[in-house]
Amino acid sequence: MSKGLLIVYTGNGKGKTTAALGLAFRALGHGFRVSFIQFIKGSWNYGEMESARLFDSMMDFHVLGKGFTWKSLDIDEDTAMACQAWEFAKGQIASGRFQVVVLDELTYLMKYGMVEEAEVVRALADRPDGLHVVVTGRDAPASLIETADLVTEMKDIKHPYTKGIKAQKGIEF
Amino acid sequence: MSKGLLIVYTGNGKGKTTAALGLAFRALGHGFRVSFIQFIKGSWNYGEMESARLFDSMMDFHVLGKGFTWKSLDIDEDTAMACQAWEFAKGQIASGRFQVVVLDELTYLMKYGMVEEAEVVRALADRPDGLHVVVTGRDAPASLIETADLVTEMKDIKHPYTKGIKAQKGIEF
Repeated sequence: MSKGLLIVYTGNGKGKTTAALGLAFRALGHGFRVSFIQFIKGSWNYGEMESARLFDSMMDFHVLGKGFTWKSLDIDEDTAMACQAWEFAKGQIASGRFQVVVLDELTYLMKYGMVEEAEVVRALADRPDGLHVVVTGRDAPASLIETADLVTEMKDIKHPYTKGIKAQKGIEF
Repeated sequence: MSKGLLIVYTGNGKGKTTAALGLAFRALGHGFRVSFIQFIKGSWNYGEMESARLFDSMMDFHVLGKGFTWKSLDIDEDTAMACQAWEFAKGQIASGRFQVVVLDELTYLMKYGMVEEAEVVRALADRPDGLHVVVTGRDAPASLIETADLVTEMKDIKHPYTKGIKAQKGIEF
């Protein structure tokens, strides 16, 4: 079996997680098994979504973050939680159970030094044959971009909040 | 009912159609009715996809293009077909049957002057209340960006073909 792709959706614009979700959906349509891991709870208000049931029924769906960001007054606790989340993700990658693993907002953990960048990039590079991995999040580090096969930067050209429009249920979360 | 969003995914990078698909999937999860219209056949090799059945079963899915591009030796025939496709899309928008309408690769028809830019933008601006419209494709015209609520440019940072890797089934199409 040949090597799957390492795909990175980065940049400050909307559409990174959405594209990862579309990719997962397309892969499901091909009968692929998908694990979708969210490192930051709240990017979609997952707990409040009816769509959670749809996602859960179609793929392995995990929300590992404890709040909108990991930032709290207790940086040690946050780092411990981030490491635990990454260990879980590594297990999913190595399990051989999936053809697609999505690591949503993983770059956040790298940016804030909660996981070791070199170790993460090495684990992604060493993924089993036939496994495609998608990483999303702002500020993807250079080493990750270097290792990736496909990198798209989602650039914010115009954002509804600048027009005074509230986030729309079903569309943005 | 308030106005839905007009969302544009443009730029030369991968992820535009994929993000539109993710948005459609998320909206379906909320119980929204979705119409997904592809103006260029072949962007996903739709006819060859097992996933076609999944998409068809979950949303109104239409492929209106006749080939990978509309370019042929008969520009009049292409333009006639493009106009017909746009008329169909206008009908879907006006029907009131959907909360989300995706117009995949519509910018292509605008770029090549197969449909009248001002008329398209006006129809999108005049969409019924409560309807979100997503337009994808390279080179979104300025008037469309001006009218849109949310615009993300997908920028190609790294593309697998530059590494000599073939397009991957289930991932890119």
